[in-house]
Amino acid sequence: MQAERPFDLLNKSIGQHVLIRLKNGSGIRGKVSSFDAHMNMVLAEAEELGDDGGSKTKLGTILLRGGNILYVSPV
Amino acid sequence: MQAERPFDLLNKSIGQHVLIRLKNGSGIRGKVSSFDAHMNMVLAEAEELGDDGGSKTKLGTILLRGGNILYVSPV
Amino acid sequence: MQAERPFDLLNKSIGQHVLIRLKNGSGIRGKVSSFDAHMNMVLAEAEELGDDGGSKTKLGTILLRGGNILYVSPV
Amino acid sequence: MQAERPFDLLNKSIGQHVLIRLKNGSGIRGKVSSFDAHMNMVLAEAEELGDDGGSKTKLGTILLRGGNILYVSPV
Amino acid sequence: MQAERPFDLLNKSIGQHVLIRLKNGSGIRGKVSSFDAHMNMVLAEAEELGDDGGSKTKLGTILLRGGNILYVSPV
Amino acid sequence: MQAERPFDLLNKSIGQHVLIRLKNGSGIRGKVSSFDAHMNMVLAEAEELGDDGGSKTKLGTILLRGGNILYVSPV
Amino acid sequence: MQAERPFDLLNKSIGQHVLIRLKNGSGIRGKVSSFDAHMNMVLAEAEELGDDGGSKTKLGTILLRGGNILYVSPV
Repeated sequence: MQAERPFDLLNKSIGQHVLIRLKNGSGIRGKVSSFDAHMNMVLAEAEELGDDGGSKTKLGTILLRGGNILYVSPV
Repeated sequence: MQAERPFDLLNKSIGQHVLIRLKNGSGIRGKVSSFDAHMNMVLAEAEELGDDGGSKTKLGTILLRGGNILYVSPV
Repeated sequence: MQAERPFDLLNKSIGQHVLIRLKNGSGIRGKVSSFDAHMNMVLAEAEELGDDGGSKTKLGTILLRGGNILYVSPV
Repeated sequence: MQAERPFDLLNKSIGQHVLIRLKNGSGIRGKVSSFDAHMNMVLAEAEELGDDGGSKTKLGTILLRGGNILYVSPV
Repeated sequence: MQAERPFDLLNKSIGQHVLIRLKNGSGIRGKVSSFDAHMNMVLAEAEELGDDGGSKTKLGTILLRGGNILYVSPV
Repeated sequence: MQAERPFDLLNKSIGQHVLIRLKNGSGIRGKVSSFDAHMNMVLAEAEELGDDGGSKTKLGTILLRGGNILYVSPV
Repeated sequence: MQAERPFDLLNKSIGQHVLIRLKNGSGIRGKVSSFDAHMNMVLAEAEELGDDGGSKTKLGTILLRGGNILYVSPV
C-alpha cells in the first residue's frame, strides 16, 4: 500500500506525550513507554482528563488495553 | 470477484481529505496519511465535526482504530 | 451445501443499486462498486435514508465497514 | 458427537420458508436461497414482521448477516 | 486438565429437555437435537418462557446461535 | 512469564464451590465440575444470587459460557 | 519496535498490588499472582472499590477475565 503505516505514529510517540480518546468518551493523557500489535500501551504520568480537557485524576503508570481506544493523538 | 476492491478507495485517498462517520454517531474529517488491513488510519489535520457538519474541535494528527468506523467518504 | 452462496448476491449487485439496513437502524442506498469477504463495500451515489425511506443526506462515494450491516437488499 | 449437526437444519430449509428472530428483537420471514458457515443467509420474498407476527414491510430478496441472528425456525 | 469437559453436558443432553438462559435475559426450553463447537444448537419443541417460568410462546424447532447463550441447564 | 498460570486456579477449583460474577452484574454460585480454554464451565448445585448475596434461584447443573464471566472466586 | 513491551509491566507486578479499572467503570484492587496473554489475571486479597476509592467489598482471590479490563496500574 503505502510506505508509512499507522503504527509508525505510535513508534514515533515513544517517550512523547499523547492524548487518548476512549470509546466510552473519556480522555487520558500520558507519556508512551511501550505498545504492542493490539495497541495495548503503557503510559507513564497518565492522568484522566475532565470535560474541560484539564487533568482530573492522576493515574501514574498504566497499562491500557488497546481495544478501548477510539484514537491516539500526539500532543 | 471484481477487479476493484474496497480498500482501493483508501489507497486512492492517501494525501486526500476524507470524512469518517463513527459507530458512535460522531464525525471526523482529516487527510489520510496511512492505513492498514484493520482500517486503522492516521489522519493529519483531523477535526471533530459538530452536528451542523462544521468543525467543532481541532484534533491535529490522530491514529484512529478501524473498529470504530461506520464509513469513510472522500470529500 | 448448495450450488449458490450468499455472497453471489453481492457479486450480481456490482453496478446495481442496493438498500442497506444497518445494525443501528438507519438505512443507506447506493450503487455497489466493490465488496470483500468481510462484507466491506464501496457504494457510489450513496445516500442516507430518512424514516420515510426517502433520501435524507447525500453521502457521495463511501467505504462501508461490513460489520455494521444488518442486511443488503437489491432495489 | 452426534450424527446430525445444527447446520443440517439450514440445509433442509433451502427453498423453504423460515422465521428468523434477530438479536435486536425484530422478526424476519422469508424463503431460504442459500447460507454459509457464518450463518449469512439469502432470503427471497423476505418481510419484516410486526409485533403481532403479521407482515409489516416487504423487503424482497435480502442478504442477512449471520451475526445478527438469535434463532432460525422453519415455518 | 480434567477427565470430563463442559461440552460433555451437551452430549449427554441429546434427546433431553434443557432450559437455556439467553444474554438478553429471556429463557427458552426445548429438546436438544444437535449442537456444534460454537454452542449452536437445534432444539425441538422449543418454547419461549415467560417471567413466571411457564411457556409463553411455542417456537417449534429452532436453530439457536450459541453466541446468545448465557447458560444451558438440563431439566 | 511466571510459574503459575491463571487457569491453575480453575484446575484447583474442580469439586470446589466458586462464586462467579457475570458481566451483566448478577452472581452465580456452584461447584466446578469441568472447564475449558474458553472458560466455559459446568457447575453443579448452581444457584443465582440475590443482591444480598443469598441464594435467589436454584439452577441445578448448568453449562455457563465463559464469555459472560467477569471473575471467578473460590469460596 | 521498542525494547520494552506492555506486558512487561504485568510481569514486574507479580506479587505487587495493582488497581484495575474495568470497562463497566468499577475498580478492583489486589495482588497479582499470575496473568496470561489474554490479560486474564489472578489477584489475591482482591477488593472492589467504592466511588471514593476506598474498599467496598472483600473478594478474596479472583480470576479476572482480561476482556473486562480498561487499564491496570501498579499502586
